[in-house]
Amino acid sequence: MARILITTVPFGDKNDQPLRQLEASGVEYLINPIGRKLKEDELASMVSDVEVLIAGTEPITEKVMANAPGLKLISRVGIGLDSVDLMGAERRGIKVSYTPDAPAPAVAELTIGLMFSLMRSIHLANAQMHRGEWHRYFGRRLPDMCFGIVGAGRIGGRVLRHLSSLGAGRLLVNDTNADVDLSEVPGVERVSKEVIYRESDIVSLHVPLTAQTRNMVTCEHLSLMKPDAMIVNTARGGIINEADLAGVLSDGRLAGAAVDVFCEEPYQGPLSSIDRCLLTSHMGSMSIDCRTQMEIEATEEAIRYLSGAPLQGLVPDAEYQVQREGL
Amino acid sequence: MARILITTVPFGDKNDQPLRQLEASGVEYLINPIGRKLKEDELASMVSDVEVLIAGTEPITEKVMANAPGLKLISRVGIGLDSVDLMGAERRGIKVSYTPDAPAPAVAELTIGLMFSLMRSIHLANAQMHRGEWHRYFGRRLPDMCFGIVGAGRIGGRVLRHLSSLGAGRLLVNDTNADVDLSEVPGVERVSKEVIYRESDIVSLHVPLTAQTRNMVTCEHLSLMKPDAMIVNTARGGIINEADLAGVLSDGRLAGAAVDVFCEEPYQGPLSSIDRCLLTSHMGSMSIDCRTQMEIEATEEAIRYLSGAPLQGLVPDAEYQVQREGL
Repeated sequence: MARILITTVPFGDKNDQPLRQLEASGVEYLINPIGRKLKEDELASMVSDVEVLIAGTEPITEKVMANAPGLKLISRVGIGLDSVDLMGAERRGIKVSYTPDAPAPAVAELTIGLMFSLMRSIHLANAQMHRGEWHRYFGRRLPDMCFGIVGAGRIGGRVLRHLSSLGAGRLLVNDTNADVDLSEVPGVERVSKEVIYRESDIVSLHVPLTAQTRNMVTCEHLSLMKPDAMIVNTARGGIINEADLAGVLSDGRLAGAAVDVFCEEPYQGPLSSIDRCLLTSHMGSMSIDCRTQMEIEATEEAIRYLSGAPLQGLVPDAEYQVQREGL
Repeated sequence: MARILITTVPFGDKNDQPLRQLEASGVEYLINPIGRKLKEDELASMVSDVEVLIAGTEPITEKVMANAPGLKLISRVGIGLDSVDLMGAERRGIKVSYTPDAPAPAVAELTIGLMFSLMRSIHLANAQMHRGEWHRYFGRRLPDMCFGIVGAGRIGGRVLRHLSSLGAGRLLVNDTNADVDLSEVPGVERVSKEVIYRESDIVSLHVPLTAQTRNMVTCEHLSLMKPDAMIVNTARGGIINEADLAGVLSDGRLAGAAVDVFCEEPYQGPLSSIDRCLLTSHMGSMSIDCRTQMEIEATEEAIRYLSGAPLQGLVPDAEYQVQREGL
């Protein structure tokens, strides 16, 4: 009987160290047999005997926890906690840990890569060339552009530093966010979100999904943007309203968008039929090194719990406070 | 009767300053009416009365020049001179100018963008998502990778500086090239080309097309590379043997390739049917700012010639020497 259920997949795929750590610990574990992100009911049906969840982004709800009387620890592989009912976990005495630092470098690099594709229409030219068509797109360069970063935490701060080192023209960050010391990034301007939407050539979102950020970007905000501006979301689905984004792009507004995260994953929806919407499959943290680091940290936390050692990755009170204010 | 023939297209498209300069000069000009890169015969049929060519990369051969008895100046929009028979021009007293610095920033940024797509499989995920398929690719990060730059001139030097500022793991450059002062790029290793092929995770080519570099990369060199390595060509078609690259990729070797330049453009060929070959349409210099700068510089040189002012962009002797040794 497995005491650990690993729901996130792939797991131990490119580097088997977390699997070897589990074997060495002697604890029985089961890896998500469905092989994709679990739905609430699927997860609820698997947890009756589980003590520890090594979890991805599947919904860990009241219903799931009600089916898991033995659950003691949720060890998230990653940073986002929008999928976990922290209030419910607290009521039931279930501890929650996470790996907030490990994914940041990979997400930041993917973000920069998506920006380059948008700036130079790499995705559009590639699709056309593979159809035997030749069109030379004009592009834009970093020193001529204004980048607006909403959320300058672990990931947004790295995106700002990369852009600065590449010689970006202007760097804006929203003034409601002061998580990270940006004193070493020269020339960053702290402005309102409205100024970010109005003045940026590329807006990039790096906030968690909370009650405050759900549908943070709607038609109204997209309409503030320059007609040839672009937007990137490598944070969480739902921060940009997907239907609004599809509508604005279909109307011919905005030069492009890049979306790595979706309300429902795997994604199937109208953005797939819009060529200038660059789409990736929630790959932000999916570099071999960062993914391995996340898996190892979450696994070590699980083993610490089962062996009675002090936990090291417990989610801080501030995260509970965010959910207390409503998710 | 047009005294200036502008063969490169698009021209004056995103910024009409070069067109306004031509209007202000009062000189009659004609823009390539075919709207794509001209073939030798097409160009030869257009040049009988022309004094100045504002030229792209179409072949300016002995045959073309024999049909252009009044031709006095070839003003290249760009840096590459592989398309111009410099020996023939010299014999006929035709001057040749170029704009070697203007394209470099745009080519270097496209190169970095292509590398990010390769590293994170952005192009593959995007194609699949637009077909309604969801596959999460593992990627790699800059600090874990070794980059081998063949040719550290105006463009390769910039690529090295960008990679260094982004935190790339190892940076190799071929020791036969000492064009550029790399002292401000920390940790660059000068090695043989063979070491570059053997040890790099991404090889990127930044050499001109000459007798020495034509087919510089064949099956033999691609076979030296690690099975999961990748190669980028934003320099000139023909530097990598296209058939060899298609063969190696079709055989399942190399993790990917990115190709912006082709032996014959517009490209139609076997690389188009290989998903993990990222293809763009000779867009290296196609940023609005760099393209405009190139067009303005080439136009001003043409006007200087026709008004009797001293030329400022004449191709240096070293470029003639390269062709004297055989193209």
